[in-house]
Amino acid sequence: MKFEILSTDPSSNARCGRLYTAHGTVDTPVFMPVGTAGSVKSLSPDELEALGARIILGNTYHLYLRPGDERIARLGGLHRFMSWERPILTDSGGFQVFSLARINRIEEAGVQFQSHIDGSRHYLTPETAVRIQKHLGSDICMCFDECTPYPVSYEYAAQSVARTVRWAERSAKAHAETEGFGPQALFGIVQGSVFSDLREKCLEKLLEIGFDGYAIGSLSVGEPKPEMLSIMRRLAPALPRTLPRYVMGVGTPEDLVEGVNCGVDMFDCVMPTRNARNGMLFTSRGPVNIKNAAYAEDPDPIDPDCGCYTCRRFSRAYLRHLYIARELLSYRLNTIHNLHFYLDLMAQMRSAIGAGEFAAWRTNFYARMEAFSGKNLESPESDGDLPRDETV
Amino acid sequence: MKFEILSTDPSSNARCGRLYTAHGTVDTPVFMPVGTAGSVKSLSPDELEALGARIILGNTYHLYLRPGDERIARLGGLHRFMSWERPILTDSGGFQVFSLARINRIEEAGVQFQSHIDGSRHYLTPETAVRIQKHLGSDICMCFDECTPYPVSYEYAAQSVARTVRWAERSAKAHAETEGFGPQALFGIVQGSVFSDLREKCLEKLLEIGFDGYAIGSLSVGEPKPEMLSIMRRLAPALPRTLPRYVMGVGTPEDLVEGVNCGVDMFDCVMPTRNARNGMLFTSRGPVNIKNAAYAEDPDPIDPDCGCYTCRRFSRAYLRHLYIARELLSYRLNTIHNLHFYLDLMAQMRSAIGAGEFAAWRTNFYARMEAFSGKNLESPESDGDLPRDETV
Repeated sequence: MKFEILSTDPSSNARCGRLYTAHGTVDTPVFMPVGTAGSVKSLSPDELEALGARIILGNTYHLYLRPGDERIARLGGLHRFMSWERPILTDSGGFQVFSLARINRIEEAGVQFQSHIDGSRHYLTPETAVRIQKHLGSDICMCFDECTPYPVSYEYAAQSVARTVRWAERSAKAHAETEGFGPQALFGIVQGSVFSDLREKCLEKLLEIGFDGYAIGSLSVGEPKPEMLSIMRRLAPALPRTLPRYVMGVGTPEDLVEGVNCGVDMFDCVMPTRNARNGMLFTSRGPVNIKNAAYAEDPDPIDPDCGCYTCRRFSRAYLRHLYIARELLSYRLNTIHNLHFYLDLMAQMRSAIGAGEFAAWRTNFYARMEAFSGKNLESPESDGDLPRDETV
Repeated sequence: MKFEILSTDPSSNARCGRLYTAHGTVDTPVFMPVGTAGSVKSLSPDELEALGARIILGNTYHLYLRPGDERIARLGGLHRFMSWERPILTDSGGFQVFSLARINRIEEAGVQFQSHIDGSRHYLTPETAVRIQKHLGSDICMCFDECTPYPVSYEYAAQSVARTVRWAERSAKAHAETEGFGPQALFGIVQGSVFSDLREKCLEKLLEIGFDGYAIGSLSVGEPKPEMLSIMRRLAPALPRTLPRYVMGVGTPEDLVEGVNCGVDMFDCVMPTRNARNGMLFTSRGPVNIKNAAYAEDPDPIDPDCGCYTCRRFSRAYLRHLYIARELLSYRLNTIHNLHFYLDLMAQMRSAIGAGEFAAWRTNFYARMEAFSGKNLESPESDGDLPRDETV
């Protein structure tokens, strides 16, 4: 995998780059829609392409449990399995093991856990996590890591970082020794919770091992937003300038703008897709909760400034009806709209950076956000009706 | 609405025709996908068009209850509401009132019932059923009728037929007197359960009133298949030759072939869409239950002879995975395949009739069915996991 920096913003750490993979190029900064179990929920690969998604994320934990990584390997790998020909990044499974499964034991060798699907017992190690990702044939593989919850004691976080570093060494070794479907990059993950010195120490050790890219893990796991932003702002510029920088599981539109501003190249988050299924839609005028009775006879599109299929063809009234009636089409139309919002936001930022106007763009973005903040928003955190097996 | 007969089969009652409506023409014999609550479940209007659907059915009962016909009228009618520009037929609500709702009272004026959604009390009469359909702005409106269950006594069926005829008279009067969005045809519905003389008497009375088309109601409501076929075979040719003939809620692929053979022009049924959501897929080699473990690593498409999007892009293994994981994409990909099967079957029949080769086509169809009957079929009647608010 090659990474090239195309342009940098004069007044911030923001930069435009290009990732070259065996499945095509990806312009950065990029948002990766989450395709948990071999499908970006409710969307076909054609729709993802039409939305301009260039790379998606697949979840190692979910695919390992169902349908099984060996099965996917026998069927030609994840790209062929899900009929998606563009790049795929797979996470390490670490985050899901620690957030979805029931953990039985964390030990030096790995983690013993029980499946959230059927309670069956499994054991993930750095070596197995890499082997699974080789079976999936993703373009970018992540090191197996321990994701600490928030809050966590300094002592535990320090121990955990040390283990995550040892696991990263083992991941790198396993990655070098294991055959796969083709070229596959390996990224290290910086851990350390909210403790700056631990984060820095972790990064230092990972740099000694050497990876194709570096990620910041365990953000947006419950810590206050200022803490999250502070870690991202401090750590992102410290990651190697010439390699891709990836903040995992982040975040809101504002988080993406802040991430780009401090030099992050890659993001993933279930927020646009999960919120869509819960009826919470992002717009240029702030969030819209489509359940709201105010929309029952509203003939306008969700966002008059949006050019997505949903906004071109359907009214708020219809979308509200589909949501209330739990029609399957609801999940899809909402997902198309929200992913369009996220992917368009990234495209706007790439364009602004390329034009040397990112600072002005960012100021304008915040002015718009402020003007519309809280408008129409009822309950963005409300629970939906569908099973929640997507990662946070 | 105009109906034109384009060609007739020399050896049967099969014929090709063309319906002219304000929203375009429909070549018959035609299958109408069911769009219960303003959406053919899981599909976008674009996908329906791409599948070649020329006319769809909307359910008066469902749309009256949610989001409400007056609301849809204020939003410009059902076509605009759901962004479907081709013709729509709406049923009368009769069938759903008698199959889904809790009936409180059937009387001469109409039917008092409770909503299956929230238990709220409602009253449907021939006049209100017509008014609702005027609000929806469908191209074809159905008379309000009583749908008798199976079995039913001769005495009850006779009383019910007499009332259905009186309701048809009132429907016709209301239809003539009520303003709507534009030209709207009105079809009468022949009732009479499995009693030939009642069916004939009902038809005779309906002919005296005079309708734009005639439907056969209360078939496939539990009666043995030979009874169903016998009524259809006897009654269909007795319906006016120059007007569209519609068998409601029917049926299996074989039922459609038999219906066309005896001169039926229009069909609707939830079988292709509902079975799809339950993992039961129609193929040229007989039905496939995609849950079957035998497909877990099967790289072939559902039907190697099928040209639908699902079969062009995805393997049985992937479709099985999506189904087992309850991924939203599963319902859509299965629905696309099954509707393609039904719509293609109708296209084949129109083509065979036009070429004067329907008898040979039908013989060949049965030979294929027989060769593959029962193959791969595990449990086509199994319950799915989704709420079942679609009409039978």
